[in-house]
Amino acid sequence: MTKLDLITLGRAAVDFNANEINRPMEETMTFTKYVGGSPANVAIGTAKLGLNVGMISRVSSDQHGNFVVDYMDRAGVDTKYFKRDTEGRKTGLTFTEIKSPEECSILMYRDNVADLYLSVDDFDDDYITTADSLLVSGTALSQSPSREAVFHAVDVAKRHGVEVIFELDYRPYTWKREEEKSIYMMEIAKKADIVLGTRDEFDVLEGDKGLSDDESVKHLFNHSPKLIVIKHGVKGSKAFTREGEMIEGKAYKTEVLKTFGAGDSFASGFIYAMKKEKSIEDALKYGSAAASIVVSKHSSSEAMPTVSEIEELIKTHEG
Amino acid sequence: MTKLDLITLGRAAVDFNANEINRPMEETMTFTKYVGGSPANVAIGTAKLGLNVGMISRVSSDQHGNFVVDYMDRAGVDTKYFKRDTEGRKTGLTFTEIKSPEECSILMYRDNVADLYLSVDDFDDDYITTADSLLVSGTALSQSPSREAVFHAVDVAKRHGVEVIFELDYRPYTWKREEEKSIYMMEIAKKADIVLGTRDEFDVLEGDKGLSDDESVKHLFNHSPKLIVIKHGVKGSKAFTREGEMIEGKAYKTEVLKTFGAGDSFASGFIYAMKKEKSIEDALKYGSAAASIVVSKHSSSEAMPTVSEIEELIKTHEG
Amino acid sequence: MTKLDLITLGRAAVDFNANEINRPMEETMTFTKYVGGSPANVAIGTAKLGLNVGMISRVSSDQHGNFVVDYMDRAGVDTKYFKRDTEGRKTGLTFTEIKSPEECSILMYRDNVADLYLSVDDFDDDYITTADSLLVSGTALSQSPSREAVFHAVDVAKRHGVEVIFELDYRPYTWKREEEKSIYMMEIAKKADIVLGTRDEFDVLEGDKGLSDDESVKHLFNHSPKLIVIKHGVKGSKAFTREGEMIEGKAYKTEVLKTFGAGDSFASGFIYAMKKEKSIEDALKYGSAAASIVVSKHSSSEAMPTVSEIEELIKTHEG
Amino acid sequence: MTKLDLITLGRAAVDFNANEINRPMEETMTFTKYVGGSPANVAIGTAKLGLNVGMISRVSSDQHGNFVVDYMDRAGVDTKYFKRDTEGRKTGLTFTEIKSPEECSILMYRDNVADLYLSVDDFDDDYITTADSLLVSGTALSQSPSREAVFHAVDVAKRHGVEVIFELDYRPYTWKREEEKSIYMMEIAKKADIVLGTRDEFDVLEGDKGLSDDESVKHLFNHSPKLIVIKHGVKGSKAFTREGEMIEGKAYKTEVLKTFGAGDSFASGFIYAMKKEKSIEDALKYGSAAASIVVSKHSSSEAMPTVSEIEELIKTHEG
Repeated sequence: MTKLDLITLGRAAVDFNANEINRPMEETMTFTKYVGGSPANVAIGTAKLGLNVGMISRVSSDQHGNFVVDYMDRAGVDTKYFKRDTEGRKTGLTFTEIKSPEECSILMYRDNVADLYLSVDDFDDDYITTADSLLVSGTALSQSPSREAVFHAVDVAKRHGVEVIFELDYRPYTWKREEEKSIYMMEIAKKADIVLGTRDEFDVLEGDKGLSDDESVKHLFNHSPKLIVIKHGVKGSKAFTREGEMIEGKAYKTEVLKTFGAGDSFASGFIYAMKKEKSIEDALKYGSAAASIVVSKHSSSEAMPTVSEIEELIKTHEG
Repeated sequence: MTKLDLITLGRAAVDFNANEINRPMEETMTFTKYVGGSPANVAIGTAKLGLNVGMISRVSSDQHGNFVVDYMDRAGVDTKYFKRDTEGRKTGLTFTEIKSPEECSILMYRDNVADLYLSVDDFDDDYITTADSLLVSGTALSQSPSREAVFHAVDVAKRHGVEVIFELDYRPYTWKREEEKSIYMMEIAKKADIVLGTRDEFDVLEGDKGLSDDESVKHLFNHSPKLIVIKHGVKGSKAFTREGEMIEGKAYKTEVLKTFGAGDSFASGFIYAMKKEKSIEDALKYGSAAASIVVSKHSSSEAMPTVSEIEELIKTHEG
Repeated sequence: MTKLDLITLGRAAVDFNANEINRPMEETMTFTKYVGGSPANVAIGTAKLGLNVGMISRVSSDQHGNFVVDYMDRAGVDTKYFKRDTEGRKTGLTFTEIKSPEECSILMYRDNVADLYLSVDDFDDDYITTADSLLVSGTALSQSPSREAVFHAVDVAKRHGVEVIFELDYRPYTWKREEEKSIYMMEIAKKADIVLGTRDEFDVLEGDKGLSDDESVKHLFNHSPKLIVIKHGVKGSKAFTREGEMIEGKAYKTEVLKTFGAGDSFASGFIYAMKKEKSIEDALKYGSAAASIVVSKHSSSEAMPTVSEIEELIKTHEG
Repeated sequence: MTKLDLITLGRAAVDFNANEINRPMEETMTFTKYVGGSPANVAIGTAKLGLNVGMISRVSSDQHGNFVVDYMDRAGVDTKYFKRDTEGRKTGLTFTEIKSPEECSILMYRDNVADLYLSVDDFDDDYITTADSLLVSGTALSQSPSREAVFHAVDVAKRHGVEVIFELDYRPYTWKREEEKSIYMMEIAKKADIVLGTRDEFDVLEGDKGLSDDESVKHLFNHSPKLIVIKHGVKGSKAFTREGEMIEGKAYKTEVLKTFGAGDSFASGFIYAMKKEKSIEDALKYGSAAASIVVSKHSSSEAMPTVSEIEELIKTHEG
């Protein structure tokens, strides 16, 4: 098997983005279809940047499932471990509403979705060992059997020296009980090498204890993590290393169309730069640049930038 | 309360119809949003023809639910008994695929949908007694508590002399066990005054016994039904009366875009004509004309014709 | 196939009756095991009286299921259509508490019980046609697929001229929603030839409208029933005929140990007498006598009396 | 709050033990009621030996729930955190069948049982910090929300220096999917200070990899455990220390009535001895002696021995 730079694991979904914007969704009459879902977006984003990427997921055995797999294929992502659900479960949907750049909301269809039925039987342990890094998404922890698939995949990764990246990707839907969120997210965070998330997501991870960034990272550095990135929206982001360094990254200002997709494009740019052995400081720039490009465009996946677009933006804004 | 000509009871949903047609859905990138669902379409269709119509349903407390209720309101349907689900259940969705006029298919999202949670507590018995007729949809029988809501509504209607119209509207989704279909559909068919459906739907009703039209109606005429309409697609339809009459109606030939919506527009035209005391023969013409207009257009609800469009088509094709 | 006098359909369960009585169950340390469940008790009771009886039920594939079937076999009941659940579902349990003859209560284990998974596939229609009468129990209507099995069995019986006896047998457990009770019990009551129940059970059947006995029977006599028996505990019972007769039966006074089993033994005695073409007046006596014998003994099934015990008691109390 | 030696967490159930033995359960007609469930038995066993013990559990709001709590109270166990289920869930039941000392089996009622609905809200973190040790049972991991209650309790214990004892207590029932067993049991085993189980239970813990005792303990000693006891039935047991010691304990031969309760009485004797600072060698003797006494008697809880009974047996068998 070819060596992969990255495998992402979790949901791949379909986004229906409003064509007519700056209005409530009730008044939006036409929608354009894109691939969505955080780990799918990161797979597409990093593949577009030139990494060798695969994804482990489960989608519906219908036209929406076909669309997702076809798109991922064409984006250059290895879809060998995209399993088709055989119990009639559906691919998740997200309808976006863009009232203004500041007022964006989403309407999700996540009942009985195929991705949360990803199971340990859906992939081979060997596949994970072919990768440099495994990225798992917090949402995949929200229900069984997907939850156990994450635990198993992370266990395999750790036993074989595959770097584990945990993208907190917290979505309130589909978690059944409050206490499950922090219990399972924290178990995986403690096992990960790199943890990425917004300040709000770290709050969920910690059971809403109201910790500061310093307290958050101190707790996690007692366990496996070596690098932790906490994002603060327009205020930029902070990367912390186990050795005690703290590196700040700022957000690039662009024409914002909507806020969706910022996190996934940040992760894509950041991971790409780390794989290319850039400094953490530079990786934060790649992440921020990728995010600022995506939020100015209509989709979260199709809009993923190329390396030259990212580097051009960084140059322009620093020049 | 104003006297209503008709109350329909059952699902109201959202259709996403492919804008780019004559291709598989995988290659369709944009969709237009319409109200859908058989009893919603009939409510819209008959309201557009000038009847005084209300609907009893349950939709989501989100943008899709708002859209449905707003649209029904503007179409002149009384939406007083459109209840909002408070448990996070969603409005059902239907994506249409139009490969060719002969090859149309749909992809439905019906897991945990609000309409199947319509309950006896969602409407007042008095509301039903304000109507001349109550139309119930077979799909509303597929699960509890919607199933019991239908039984209760039909019981109220019968006790108060409100005519019961049963539109078989069979959809394979959401029925949990094979035997439930014919047991509950047959219970309601026996209690109805008028039964409408395709030959295939009568087969489901009868537990796939392979009956002829004559056998089907003979069995039902032992119970409450007075008028039964069995539709045979392009071959036209047959109306049977308890008194032993059989009246044939033919289908009008038009430029067919897709087959969706034919049944609901037929029911709308047919019911309108019956309320206007046309003959059964004429009512079949109104039904067929309405159907032939809707299948030539993009939607199932927005495309519902006016009286003059129907009468023009009948005149033209007979002239 | 031999002609059967009676087939009962519904649950067969295991009773654990307190050995040490006149105390709360918490202080009862030993229990004796019996077969229980209303239609099983009636099958045992009528078989013991000499009728030719079969039962349709589903029990667990374990020692409790074996015990039930062995016991029924030895009691002379045809157990050909006792199906074994293959999904690990259990036989229902009832623990009895006898604080005093007036204060009896029960603790039931009815979660996921095998009997409520009786399905239309578990029996052959032909079997029902071999019987003179089919007795169905209200509890079997409380959940699917057992509910549909009752509808189907009653439909088969009616199509083949088999008399349908509906023993209301209302138990609050296992009914999921309030409205289901009266909707489904009333559908079956309307189809039955004979309806038996306590005044409280008729209230449930009618949706707690507070009807009098006269109102209750007037409503049902508009449909299939020909004979209705309403029991009023120690005040005796009343039988009503479609022709307008009302016959009162009194309760026999005996040494009461507990109240369990009174209804099932009444039904056994009453049905036996009707099959033997006794008068309704006499049938009420046979029912009351059987009940008074069972409430003076420890179990509801094992305690079922013989014909001579019943006739002896009637003679003694009248003499 | 008083300092407790031990808190056990998990199920408390009711056992119905066959009075007539050496026969299949089908032929057993009377049963005697006892408290049961592994962590309840250990709480009773250690309390009887003189330890200061509490238990965290959830039982039914009925007579069986009352019986359990009353019995535990009288046995001297602190029942402050025995919560009553308010959703109608039942206390689990176990019926025992004793065909011969070698052929014992059980029939469990575990559908929708209260103990698996123990939640993090049912106990205060402070209560756990009052104890020297917390014993959690593997069965409590089989379903949510009890699973999360275990994770949370273990997390609290570890943060406050409370020793965690993990009694594997594997029961095939109630686990929904194969992969869940080893994933969650292993997570807790890695966090525990002491792990106790049979060789078969270690196999389940490890995902049936067929490891030897040496391989099993080597893996776990990479994590938190300091002491691991693997039981081999009549062949005795082996205790392993993180420091590399292995101490063998032998089983005492007694008149065996049944095999139930051996594990819980072993744990009770072993934990008691460790708390009394006996050597590991002696603790294994106390465990084996307690087990050999319980298997010669009728129950698993009531039969728990006193210190003098244990010490007498040890002396006799060595003397």
